[in-house]
Formats: sequence, C-alpha cells, structure tokens
Amino acid sequence: MKGTNRHKYKATIQYLGSRYAGWQVQKNELTIQQVIQEVLTRLAGTRINVIGASRTDSGVHALGQVAHFVFPEKETISDLQLAINANLPRDIRVVRLIRARPRFHAQKDAKRKRYEYRIVTARVLSPFLAGRVCHVPVPLDYASMQEAAARFLGEHDFTALSASRTTVKNKVRRILKSEMVRQGNRLTFRVEARGFLHHMVRNMAGTLVDVGLGKLKPSDIDCIIESRDRNRAGPTAPAEGLYLVRIWY
Amino acid sequence: MKGTNRHKYKATIQYLGSRYAGWQVQKNELTIQQVIQEVLTRLAGTRINVIGASRTDSGVHALGQVAHFVFPEKETISDLQLAINANLPRDIRVVRLIRARPRFHAQKDAKRKRYEYRIVTARVLSPFLAGRVCHVPVPLDYASMQEAAARFLGEHDFTALSASRTTVKNKVRRILKSEMVRQGNRLTFRVEARGFLHHMVRNMAGTLVDVGLGKLKPSDIDCIIESRDRNRAGPTAPAEGLYLVRIWY
Repeated sequence: MKGTNRHKYKATIQYLGSRYAGWQVQKNELTIQQVIQEVLTRLAGTRINVIGASRTDSGVHALGQVAHFVFPEKETISDLQLAINANLPRDIRVVRLIRARPRFHAQKDAKRKRYEYRIVTARVLSPFLAGRVCHVPVPLDYASMQEAAARFLGEHDFTALSASRTTVKNKVRRILKSEMVRQGNRLTFRVEARGFLHHMVRNMAGTLVDVGLGKLKPSDIDCIIESRDRNRAGPTAPAEGLYLVRIWY
Repeated sequence: MKGTNRHKYKATIQYLGSRYAGWQVQKNELTIQQVIQEVLTRLAGTRINVIGASRTDSGVHALGQVAHFVFPEKETISDLQLAINANLPRDIRVVRLIRARPRFHAQKDAKRKRYEYRIVTARVLSPFLAGRVCHVPVPLDYASMQEAAARFLGEHDFTALSASRTTVKNKVRRILKSEMVRQGNRLTFRVEARGFLHHMVRNMAGTLVDVGLGKLKPSDIDCIIESRDRNRAGPTAPAEGLYLVRIWY
C-alpha cells in the first residue's frame, strides 16, 4: 500500500437482517460486518476493517446503519459504491457513500440514533411482511400504548429495560423521542437517544405490547423504570420487528 | 368420509413466489398448490385437491390468487382458516376463506384477472425490495411507456407477446385495462383481461421497458402485435416483478 493515497469513507447501509447473526463479526456465524469487510478486502487487495455505529442484534434490520472504513484511492467514489454493491448479497446495500474527514468515527461520533419497532395487528399477516414486522394478531389499545411510550421520555436508569446479562455499568440513558404512530393496523414505536442499552428497544416494545394487551397500565411504566428490575418489564419483542433507522452526527 | 358433510370453499391466497416453482404441482419441484394441498390433506385426514384460478410461473407473486377445494365439515370457517394458516409456511397465506356454491370453479368461472408488473429505477435497490420488483437502475421514459401501454388495449392476436413454445391455438385476447402508474422511482404496469397467454404479461413488461429505454417507440407496439413475431417484442421481464393481484367472478 506504500505510496497509495488512502481515504476515509462514511457509508450508509441498509440490510435485511433475517439471514445474519447481527452486525458484528463472530466466529462461525455469518454477520453483516464480516460480509462487507470481505467485499472491501477483495476490492482493495488488502485487509479493510469496517466500524459500524451500532452493533445490531441477530435478525435486526437497518434502514440507515452508518459505518466508516479506510480504502486506497482507486476510482471515483461512485464507481467504488457500484463495485461494493455489485459484490454484496442483495440483502445488504450501501445506499450512500461519501468521503469522511480523517478523524471521523462512525461509532464514537454518533450524536443521536433512531430505532423503529414495527407491529402489525392484522388477523392474517401478509407473506410480504413476514420476517419484517412483529405480528400481534389481536387488537391493541393504541391510545394506552401512546401514553405509555411518552413515559419513557427523559433521563432514566433503564436497568429494568436492558438485557439482564449486560456488562455496561452506567444504565442511565436520555430518551429524546418516544412515540407510537399508527397507520391502519400497522403500529410503529419510534424512539431516539444518543445510545441504547442491549435489548433496550425490544424490551421497551415488548412492554408497550403488554400495555396494548391490557396486561400493564401506562402508569406502570414509571414503576417499572423505578424498580430497576428486569422482571417487572414486558418480554423482549422479536428481533424481526426492529429497524435501525437513522444516525445523526 | 361417508356420512360427513362436505362443502366447497373459495380461498383468496397471497404468496411470495421466490421459493417456489410456481403454482402448479410438479415432479421434484416445490410448488404452492402442492404445499396447500398437503396442509389441507393433513387437516382433513383425506386427500384434498386444490384448483387455482391462475397457474402462476416460478418466482411470480400473488396478492389475490383464488382457489377452490372441497373439505369435510369439521369446525367453523374461521377456525378452518386459522388452522390452514398455522400449518402453511409464512410465505403463503389464505387471506380470505368463504363457502362457495357447489358448482363454483376457481379457474373456469374467472371473469377478469389483474396482474401488476413492478419496476424500480433507483440507482441502488433497497434490500427490502430485492426479489419483489424488477430493478432497472437507469431512468425510463415514463410518458412513452404510458403511451405504449395504452396500445395493448382491445382485442388482438398476441402471438408476438406470448411464449414461443406455447400450445394454445387461439392467441386472441381482449385487454380491458393496460396502464403505467408512477410513484417516485416506482413504475407499475397494470393490466387486466379475462385471461392471458403464457409469459404474456412479462413479455408486455419487457417490451415496455424497451420503450422506456428508447429502444422502441410507443407506435412500435402496433407493429409488434401485427407481426405476430415473438422476436419483434422485448425480452421476457424477470418473474420477481410480477404479481397476480385480483380475480373477478
């Protein structure tokens, strides 16, 4: 690589998570980071590492994952994007590729992230939505779910809504947006924060579904958060309903 | 089965065709008809045959395939639908199930069918649309395609637009609707007739794409139809963009 100009790139990536064991490289499991690194390494002829903003879990989808990597200057940026996409499986796509400043870091520089959790309450789920939403084939109390979602807003210790076996010490997060949106029988939980704990959005979604089912009241959200007890909150909603939507820098 | 009441049912079926060698039962290939027949046979405890309105090709999708079958009376119709869907793979769903009159025939009684061919002209195709549309990553001349689509309307001998190796003798069909619809970079070709020849909609779509690319003029459609020469029309567009949308009785 000596004598070759190298540039840092910022890639916005979409993927259908169904076939993958999440973003991050793992032994003996197919991951999105691995697939992208292998394509870039092949194109560059030298080892390329890709750093993603969020380590999405197994089965989770992305409409706007962001990653950075350093790549030797070879061709125009538009040709590079074309070459990457031509070599990726079609359930992963670089939808935007731009030059980044040398010190840009996709994970550390992220200021705000938006996730969406999608629920469909149709009696029969369309085959075209299977694997792409969480199917709850009974009516949900939307107004209560809206009220409950708003109770996540602000700064709280989210121990009760994070994976029990997590190693992160500080479980305080500030929720900047938390709302339910409805279009017919499609419910979307939209949530934004600088960062989230492991399983946090899926645990929030599972808790909101319990509210929608009448198992919990909207005001129970406050008690659940205060308890710092994972057992008080609802179940972890399935990965297939979760989307990493957007990251702000 | 002696002594058991048997009823005829009309099922409206949706499927994602990607995994299947089309609707009709075939040796050594997985088909949608076979999967549904196996589920019904298991539930009934006796051999059940399913007759579909349209023999969709390998990879073609359906939003409104219609089929009939005779089934022993066991439970409510709503429980029967639930049991069928619980046993089907999730890329096939019975979205509506009603009792039909004894002589109803899904194929012979069909009065009108609607197909849609979906095209996306985005430079990069979203992973969420892969396998569900035809991706043409260059701009298409929509106005010309609209004009060309309208030229299919009416009664014509569609030899030039049917599969060359077809055995059907009468290739005259009356096209009742034929239009292009656009939403951003999504183009949909919508076509209705009592019946279509093999590959006819995909050949029409491939010909319209050639018009959109400037390889053909809208007025060429008339000459192509008149020629009765398959080689004059555009290529057969890929199955993954085709949807059987609705059948009228």
